[in-house]
Amino acid sequence: MTIAPDVAHLGHIELLTPEPDKSLWFFTEVMGLSENGREGDSVYLRTWDDYEHHTLKLTAHSTSGIRRTALRAASQESLDRLVKAIDAAGRGQGWVEGDTGIGPTYLFTDPDGHEFELYWESEWYEPPEQLRPALKNQAQAYPGRGICVRRLDHVNFLASRVEPNGQFLSDVLGARPTEQIMLDDGTISGQWLHFTNKSYDIVYSGDWTGSRGRLHHVAFATDTREDILRAADICLENEVLVVIETGPHKHAIQQTFFLYVYEPGGNRVELCNPGARLILAPDWKVITWTEAERAKGQAWGLKTIESFHTHGTPPVDGLRE
Amino acid sequence: MTIAPDVAHLGHIELLTPEPDKSLWFFTEVMGLSENGREGDSVYLRTWDDYEHHTLKLTAHSTSGIRRTALRAASQESLDRLVKAIDAAGRGQGWVEGDTGIGPTYLFTDPDGHEFELYWESEWYEPPEQLRPALKNQAQAYPGRGICVRRLDHVNFLASRVEPNGQFLSDVLGARPTEQIMLDDGTISGQWLHFTNKSYDIVYSGDWTGSRGRLHHVAFATDTREDILRAADICLENEVLVVIETGPHKHAIQQTFFLYVYEPGGNRVELCNPGARLILAPDWKVITWTEAERAKGQAWGLKTIESFHTHGTPPVDGLRE
Amino acid sequence: MTIAPDVAHLGHIELLTPEPDKSLWFFTEVMGLSENGREGDSVYLRTWDDYEHHTLKLTAHSTSGIRRTALRAASQESLDRLVKAIDAAGRGQGWVEGDTGIGPTYLFTDPDGHEFELYWESEWYEPPEQLRPALKNQAQAYPGRGICVRRLDHVNFLASRVEPNGQFLSDVLGARPTEQIMLDDGTISGQWLHFTNKSYDIVYSGDWTGSRGRLHHVAFATDTREDILRAADICLENEVLVVIETGPHKHAIQQTFFLYVYEPGGNRVELCNPGARLILAPDWKVITWTEAERAKGQAWGLKTIESFHTHGTPPVDGLRE
Amino acid sequence: MTIAPDVAHLGHIELLTPEPDKSLWFFTEVMGLSENGREGDSVYLRTWDDYEHHTLKLTAHSTSGIRRTALRAASQESLDRLVKAIDAAGRGQGWVEGDTGIGPTYLFTDPDGHEFELYWESEWYEPPEQLRPALKNQAQAYPGRGICVRRLDHVNFLASRVEPNGQFLSDVLGARPTEQIMLDDGTISGQWLHFTNKSYDIVYSGDWTGSRGRLHHVAFATDTREDILRAADICLENEVLVVIETGPHKHAIQQTFFLYVYEPGGNRVELCNPGARLILAPDWKVITWTEAERAKGQAWGLKTIESFHTHGTPPVDGLRE
Repeated sequence: MTIAPDVAHLGHIELLTPEPDKSLWFFTEVMGLSENGREGDSVYLRTWDDYEHHTLKLTAHSTSGIRRTALRAASQESLDRLVKAIDAAGRGQGWVEGDTGIGPTYLFTDPDGHEFELYWESEWYEPPEQLRPALKNQAQAYPGRGICVRRLDHVNFLASRVEPNGQFLSDVLGARPTEQIMLDDGTISGQWLHFTNKSYDIVYSGDWTGSRGRLHHVAFATDTREDILRAADICLENEVLVVIETGPHKHAIQQTFFLYVYEPGGNRVELCNPGARLILAPDWKVITWTEAERAKGQAWGLKTIESFHTHGTPPVDGLRE
Repeated sequence: MTIAPDVAHLGHIELLTPEPDKSLWFFTEVMGLSENGREGDSVYLRTWDDYEHHTLKLTAHSTSGIRRTALRAASQESLDRLVKAIDAAGRGQGWVEGDTGIGPTYLFTDPDGHEFELYWESEWYEPPEQLRPALKNQAQAYPGRGICVRRLDHVNFLASRVEPNGQFLSDVLGARPTEQIMLDDGTISGQWLHFTNKSYDIVYSGDWTGSRGRLHHVAFATDTREDILRAADICLENEVLVVIETGPHKHAIQQTFFLYVYEPGGNRVELCNPGARLILAPDWKVITWTEAERAKGQAWGLKTIESFHTHGTPPVDGLRE
Repeated sequence: MTIAPDVAHLGHIELLTPEPDKSLWFFTEVMGLSENGREGDSVYLRTWDDYEHHTLKLTAHSTSGIRRTALRAASQESLDRLVKAIDAAGRGQGWVEGDTGIGPTYLFTDPDGHEFELYWESEWYEPPEQLRPALKNQAQAYPGRGICVRRLDHVNFLASRVEPNGQFLSDVLGARPTEQIMLDDGTISGQWLHFTNKSYDIVYSGDWTGSRGRLHHVAFATDTREDILRAADICLENEVLVVIETGPHKHAIQQTFFLYVYEPGGNRVELCNPGARLILAPDWKVITWTEAERAKGQAWGLKTIESFHTHGTPPVDGLRE
Repeated sequence: MTIAPDVAHLGHIELLTPEPDKSLWFFTEVMGLSENGREGDSVYLRTWDDYEHHTLKLTAHSTSGIRRTALRAASQESLDRLVKAIDAAGRGQGWVEGDTGIGPTYLFTDPDGHEFELYWESEWYEPPEQLRPALKNQAQAYPGRGICVRRLDHVNFLASRVEPNGQFLSDVLGARPTEQIMLDDGTISGQWLHFTNKSYDIVYSGDWTGSRGRLHHVAFATDTREDILRAADICLENEVLVVIETGPHKHAIQQTFFLYVYEPGGNRVELCNPGARLILAPDWKVITWTEAERAKGQAWGLKTIESFHTHGTPPVDGLRE
């Protein structure tokens, strides 16, 4: 019944883009990430509060979407336990040599086919002189450039069916759902799960196209709600390449203050500020929202935008995209 | 090496005041807590984001200070494990019937003599009609009164010696230090420990009077940094009864945005906003600050105020108070 | 070509409500105004930064709407000049004894029939002991209650035709338009005018019902954008009596950060934060927005809500209200 | 008795620096101004909300300080009236051809010897493609770089004697004092004057060295208080070249939220957010602060830093600098 400590936290993600130059401009100049090396078609990027080698691996590709989501184990023993459980569930894909900055890495997929990796060993980031922070309890200097996001917050997947994926994360990885949407027919159409005291780390939403393995959005946290308002101004000034989809506003579910934009490669990116909200209760009772409650829209009444139900990456040809 | 999950989080505290009416006014009208029952000389008070019965038990007394600090266990098994470990360490005081809203409770003290309680069973708060929140994922309606603090954040004890207390919390309760101050002679003069992904839940600072069991401050978290600025205005307008000691400013250690005030009973209260800072690394390396580094003051240069080293509760007669 | 100094600023307004008790609760508990006397069916209310006797006269009535808008002249000579000009324009209604706190008052109407009053003499507010501010350069203590609006910001009238009203304010009172909307057929459908360095004090919007003398909304300014976000939370918790219409968001026109609500009497109230925006240029060139530009919605993309074009006060029977 | 409309507003300033490269880096990268041309030893710089050619002319020089402060007249007639009055007061220095973007310019000095210029004709800024704003009611795109100040807010001069300078601005230029400090011996040691509805545009503080024509600081306004907090973080990360002197905190006088830094050339720069504070009263009564009141420090209790009374530019050899 206690919070399962084997997964420590969401580590980093690999994002695909058919517009690598413009996406790189977006993540460095608009979002304020810093480059930390390149390899092949990929650029490693960091948020300033990340203690590890990279937060985002941005990879040029024929289309958009998320290639892989990394979870850091809480210890070597945790990693071993997790691998055994995943293997037993028949979802393991075996060990690979870790990416830059990361030790031995175990690959697996969730039931919908999203690729994950698990690792324990991780090199702590050592900033070069010009990125050395003034305060020693900080990973890297605050860049003061663009939106200047602090850290990766969560990944929201699309899934042909939500429930088996949430179940897999709960049963095998020790995640717990904090909130969910239940349609009138009993289907779970969205589920928010956490590994940490953050109220969610991974989210599944139903994919209206019935496809598998797609992405709804990746989210980066800012320090303050004001940063989200500034972010809207910054994105507005870059409207030729950055599309504001909806927000800023406050979610009813999880109460996160948000702004959604499309980066030039087409992936939806959320700028979010969860404020001071933490789930500390060890016996949290999952909050279930009904269709009628969802129809009320977001916290202060903003209606959920139609494209929220029609835009995912990669796009699916011939379907309602 | 993983975060010890047996203590789920800081639960509530019992605070003593020689000015019960004025302290009650402070906590309800200035801080924005809501009353949830009385018993004997005590009033139970709640922050709006607390899922349990109460956050603060305010008790009329001959002097000020903290009587007891409650920690919630993560499960019945966790509670049993913790009790066994405390007992083995020779610091247990035995079981008592729990306070209102709380199940069987085990009492113990830290080496400095601060009284703690541990419990697992806890009634989830059910708000009356007039305090029912608009959003069902919230414990209680946002009162919109005064500073309107969200939750209890941490307790900062004074201790005759810091190290044995931090050691006890680490070894026996599974806490981990995230930051500390080491004097040039090697003494640890301050240590910040956490049970959760918050970067600290309990802090020990050296008591200049050599006394035992005293309080430096209790801290309540606001939603935003702006709330701290508003708090300063609100306290300023109540300067007859509320003393602003220092702030708003940003701590170098832990980077918390803070304001310190004395409530009418004399206890120091911190209004704090930790922003989006979380310790997610399972192998966090404790940050040690030297005397020279501390001499630089707070993050943006504010010098640490002298009274920070001379005011604690209860006051100690005949000493440098 | 210089800013006409004869009208110093918007003074106060008289608002009508068919729900006087609930409207009074709204303005005191939700908005944070303070009562400063009663007379007949009216209650005088003040924002904390108003140097005059009252900001809002709230009057029980059979229906909603605005009864009168007061403008303070910059001097006795300014008042005399203005009265002469209004009289010459044939819109004067003559002198009356001033309301509480106000000297001799001249009544007139704009071409649409909205009633105005002009005065010079004004008693400076002297707060009672419990409302005395900590800082002597402030009119009244910051109440720290509810939204806690700072001052009346502007009045937005509905008018059967916008242009003659803007012309009257410009030609006779010395106002200047800063922004406006021009429909494709050349009609001005909205105009923002200012007397001060604020970018607008009075606004006219076309009334879709063709009625005269109605109100679109009255607006109160908060100290910060964060106050607007807090206001949304406070209004949400009072959703039984307070309707959030739209926002928070940023206007494209004038760039004001806004939240629109209906008070219990049915009048639309805007909570606004103009930020640091001032019109300092003495040769400001009016900004004209086209229909196509308006169709883009608000600054960050929020579509203008339908009720913005259907809700005004008082309601008009049998029309598209 | 009405606000004198002949001076429309503070236009731009010319600042001197013995470290031109580092000062230029500070104003563009840290403050977020944009370059708009060069001439000789000077670089023209703009804040994003300035409708004129430039806000700051930064000039390489043997030492620091302010060379000239420009005021824009409200019209050609206003300019003529002002020149006549200055001439009558014996402080005029005659006409010169205007600087880039500015028409015929009249030079004069205040009694302390600070150089001023007055002009009416001014070219409205036309942004190049890459700086074109998304919203047409804005002068230039929001850069999203560094602190990103909005506009020049005020200039605070040092003067050997405060009173004659405040008197000159009031009598000859039509400024009005809003607040002042009066020492126990009756000397005015600081005076805040305004031309606009801003509560101050020009400030005089007594120069402890008895020198003439020196600068205490120039101030730039940000959009929000949060921007000031971000500014402190940004300056902290650049501590090698930028010195944080004091703040963030709220002034008691004028209630401005502030941060003071020294730019690499040694000039003190204030980042300020006046919030929603405006002086609208045409009969404002000047607020006079006593020595005892000043001794209480800033609004929330911060003591005025010693260097506030010892640092001015240019430095004065052999004196208490």
